[in-house]
Amino acid sequence: MDVKRSGHRQRQAEATKRQVATAARDLFATNGYVATTIAAIAEAADIPAQTIYSAFGGKAKILRVIAWGAVAALDVDRAHEEALAAPDPADGLRMAATVQRRQFAEMYDVIAVYQEAARTDPDIAADLHTIAGNRERAFRRHVAAIEADLVPGLGVDDGLAIYLALVLPEIYRTFVVERGWTADRYGEWLGAALVRQLLGR
Amino acid sequence: MDVKRSGHRQRQAEATKRQVATAARDLFATNGYVATTIAAIAEAADIPAQTIYSAFGGKAKILRVIAWGAVAALDVDRAHEEALAAPDPADGLRMAATVQRRQFAEMYDVIAVYQEAARTDPDIAADLHTIAGNRERAFRRHVAAIEADLVPGLGVDDGLAIYLALVLPEIYRTFVVERGWTADRYGEWLGAALVRQLLGR
Repeated sequence: MDVKRSGHRQRQAEATKRQVATAARDLFATNGYVATTIAAIAEAADIPAQTIYSAFGGKAKILRVIAWGAVAALDVDRAHEEALAAPDPADGLRMAATVQRRQFAEMYDVIAVYQEAARTDPDIAADLHTIAGNRERAFRRHVAAIEADLVPGLGVDDGLAIYLALVLPEIYRTFVVERGWTADRYGEWLGAALVRQLLGR
Repeated sequence: MDVKRSGHRQRQAEATKRQVATAARDLFATNGYVATTIAAIAEAADIPAQTIYSAFGGKAKILRVIAWGAVAALDVDRAHEEALAAPDPADGLRMAATVQRRQFAEMYDVIAVYQEAARTDPDIAADLHTIAGNRERAFRRHVAAIEADLVPGLGVDDGLAIYLALVLPEIYRTFVVERGWTADRYGEWLGAALVRQLLGR
């Protein structure tokens, strides 16, 4: 086997995948997941539909590649660990707000498409369930780490409920997508709301 | 024409409509709008499908009857007027929070079904658009009425954005449907959040 040519073929395959993912992300965000066909993605990416089927296996797989690519680039887990280890819990919550702000700014479109796709595709629904579980565990770890500083009378469960409500993607949508706030302003709002409602400051 | 018999027939037709609406509301909330057929509603209500078609004209019409019935019972407009006329703006915002709490407690299931149905039914989507416009106008009137008391530097547009974010049905869902808070506790949370974020108190 010619290693150089095989390496070239692999790079080309990856370039094709990126091209398809980019075109698909645009179409999903603009027209919705259900309304976007492989044929439309093939036309937008200028790549034969058969090649797309061979490379990905279907529309849900393309969406997954887009989502995991976006998530991997954000390195959310490390950022969460840093946030919950902050000496001042208010700083930690503001750091957590920055993680959310970055996440939504980078991939709110993908999150919205995921929510839409989950309604009709059981694999995507299972993905979303896993993601929600991971998010909840990370948030609970954070709230538990600052338990001693919570508003008197507020337990970890209720603190987590408040955290989960404040980081809802629909709030980002309202402020940034619908009302024209910058992502930075949303991040500041979220940080202040978390600090106020969890720590009473 | 026999007035007595005609009155009787009308009462019977209304009773049939209520029976259908009740059965449909249960099925929509449990199985979703798209998955619920007229045949299933007919079976649950114990009323022939043909009678349902004659009385309503289709699934979207049934959903509308359910929604408008629930909305009419709440008398939201009068409650909003009272809230924005409260001498203390903090009391007014807490009254507005009570309006939202009552609305969600009475009909969160219908709101969720409406959001689902709007994705596939253009008439329901148009309804939802009208409702969102009415809500926004009512909220803007309220924020404008307390403009002088808003947090320094906060204008009516941004105050409205905060109002719209805090009253999102997804927040009610998180607290009450998913995390087991009582509707009353949600209402208190919302009142405190509105007062804090709009008035700085």
